[in-house]
Amino acid sequence: MNQRLTNMSKWMNQNQIEISIITSTENVFYLSGFYSDPHERLLALIAFQQEEPILICPAMEKEDAKASGWTYEIIGYSDVENPWEMARKAIERRVNKVSKLAVEKEHMNVERYESVSSIFPEAAFISAEEILRNLRMIKDEKEIAKIREACVLADYAVEVGCAEIKEGKTEFDILAVIEYEMKKKGITAMSFATMVLTGANGASPHGNPGLSKVKKGDFVLFDLGVVVDGYCSDITRTVAYGDITDQQKEIYDTVLKAQLAAIDASKPGAACSTIDRTARKIIQEAGYGEYFPHRLGHGLGIGVHEYPSLTETNPLLLERGMVYTIEPGIYVPNVAGVRIEDDVFVTADGVEVLTKFPKELQIIK
Amino acid sequence: MNQRLTNMSKWMNQNQIEISIITSTENVFYLSGFYSDPHERLLALIAFQQEEPILICPAMEKEDAKASGWTYEIIGYSDVENPWEMARKAIERRVNKVSKLAVEKEHMNVERYESVSSIFPEAAFISAEEILRNLRMIKDEKEIAKIREACVLADYAVEVGCAEIKEGKTEFDILAVIEYEMKKKGITAMSFATMVLTGANGASPHGNPGLSKVKKGDFVLFDLGVVVDGYCSDITRTVAYGDITDQQKEIYDTVLKAQLAAIDASKPGAACSTIDRTARKIIQEAGYGEYFPHRLGHGLGIGVHEYPSLTETNPLLLERGMVYTIEPGIYVPNVAGVRIEDDVFVTADGVEVLTKFPKELQIIK
Repeated sequence: MNQRLTNMSKWMNQNQIEISIITSTENVFYLSGFYSDPHERLLALIAFQQEEPILICPAMEKEDAKASGWTYEIIGYSDVENPWEMARKAIERRVNKVSKLAVEKEHMNVERYESVSSIFPEAAFISAEEILRNLRMIKDEKEIAKIREACVLADYAVEVGCAEIKEGKTEFDILAVIEYEMKKKGITAMSFATMVLTGANGASPHGNPGLSKVKKGDFVLFDLGVVVDGYCSDITRTVAYGDITDQQKEIYDTVLKAQLAAIDASKPGAACSTIDRTARKIIQEAGYGEYFPHRLGHGLGIGVHEYPSLTETNPLLLERGMVYTIEPGIYVPNVAGVRIEDDVFVTADGVEVLTKFPKELQIIK
Repeated sequence: MNQRLTNMSKWMNQNQIEISIITSTENVFYLSGFYSDPHERLLALIAFQQEEPILICPAMEKEDAKASGWTYEIIGYSDVENPWEMARKAIERRVNKVSKLAVEKEHMNVERYESVSSIFPEAAFISAEEILRNLRMIKDEKEIAKIREACVLADYAVEVGCAEIKEGKTEFDILAVIEYEMKKKGITAMSFATMVLTGANGASPHGNPGLSKVKKGDFVLFDLGVVVDGYCSDITRTVAYGDITDQQKEIYDTVLKAQLAAIDASKPGAACSTIDRTARKIIQEAGYGEYFPHRLGHGLGIGVHEYPSLTETNPLLLERGMVYTIEPGIYVPNVAGVRIEDDVFVTADGVEVLTKFPKELQIIK
């Protein structure tokens, strides 16, 4: 079994969980290497303590599952077959009794829960989410390579966006060109809805792009990411369009200083809370504390929001292989909104910054 | 209460269901007019047989909910409050005993199910999905108006796509321009991932757009839709790039004949199966039966796949106010793929076709 499935089995063993039924696209992909979203149809990976795992998917996806490298049993079902009944038989060939069963409680719906409960009426249901979040938190080399590639494209997307900043252009105009260029490179999914925010819109941490036009003297904020082979990047850059005021510059410099300090503080053994506070302290001391209303960052990988969570209170210690964002921001209504975000990867003695678009204040003329 | 909530309460009354807890963005929007996707946070509409309904949402969305026209109680909760506990109290002020409780079993996750079960340990859980699908199936004037607007934009999107067909262009190039033009019109969501398929790719009913280039002698297939105020359109057009063979023409003409016949057969009182078979018979008689592997069409509205389902076997009778697609296709591997899809709305004595891009074979030179 691959290391991920072995880790899962070990957790099940420690917790006397006989079977895990994993049904989310992301976690099935993580454990099996098979990426599929069959919508309302069932996709499930069934893991055991000792026995070999099983993959259940629509019959027409069976070949794709094999091609993705899955070498264990695959149960392919047609639209007239009951996959749960087929699963029951396959499980009964492996284990005699199921007293504890793990599922993704935040993902599995009630209809499926009732199907599983009817097969194992005596079983207690345990949440599989926390262990999978913890396993996914530490990335291997292959995962880092994909995120790295997604970061290169995210850098390019910001470059494309900057080149589009011209008098009369709307946020949507610029955003559309960015996504167009990404599609031309064969990118089929962005990590989330691309944000291009200008002026007052950028001064709200939850602004949505629209038909506002860029105008001289405003900041333009880009927040975007690209998915490569199932792995996400996430970058934010804020650039000035024309000359800006001293206060805008001060805000920019403060965010940048906080961001660099948080990168500098990041290393194995440092607490997530320490990293958040390092940045927060700089922003507070500059008098902008109340304008930094969100956490410093979040893990990313198959999901765009994963563990670790970089908050003021998270005692979790950083470990080699973690990938997360560092994205302090200052949002002063009607004055300026600045956020600078990089994706970083924890190495043996610090972090490597994967997003590389320049962070010194860019002034677009 | 609005008609939709009244219908819901009537169903609950008939089935002795004391409360319904509706949590999907689409159904909450349908019943309340409030469109919100608070991701992992709870959004819920609680309906009763007699008493006034309750909306539960994150506190920061309370004003948006009011602005959308909701005039009943709103429970806004902060990140440190337990919304289920607040819901329990509000429910207890309205009803004494809950023996039957309806939820969307295909939407609600196990974690929430456990929360609700712990509040009402004696209650039987009933599925609310079927009634909501049936209610949503019949559209009112306002809904038709929004779908009509979404169809106008879908027509325009196909027009944009046709204008982009030129030697050397890839499927992605064309797709990107379509989405760019839609974004410039302020459209923030397409109904689904836009499809532009050429040549052999269009000859697969599940093809995905990529970097294939259009070339003379091939069909180019567009399948796309636009969301306007929460309502979807869905159109497919297939156009020829340069001269095509007699067999390609025959396939096109057969699909068009089948599509027009199905439109003609559509009227209140006709069975869904009759409409599907009307089209299927024409394709079968032309010798292409095995190359039309999918149902004729599907309802659409807030969702891009709703009731009614136009299959060979669905006995459901059409009613005034239903909106659905009519989309026969013929996919002959390595020869041609043609699909023609319109959105139609059932009137007193037939259907009105809402998508209007020309269907006579368009030859792009």
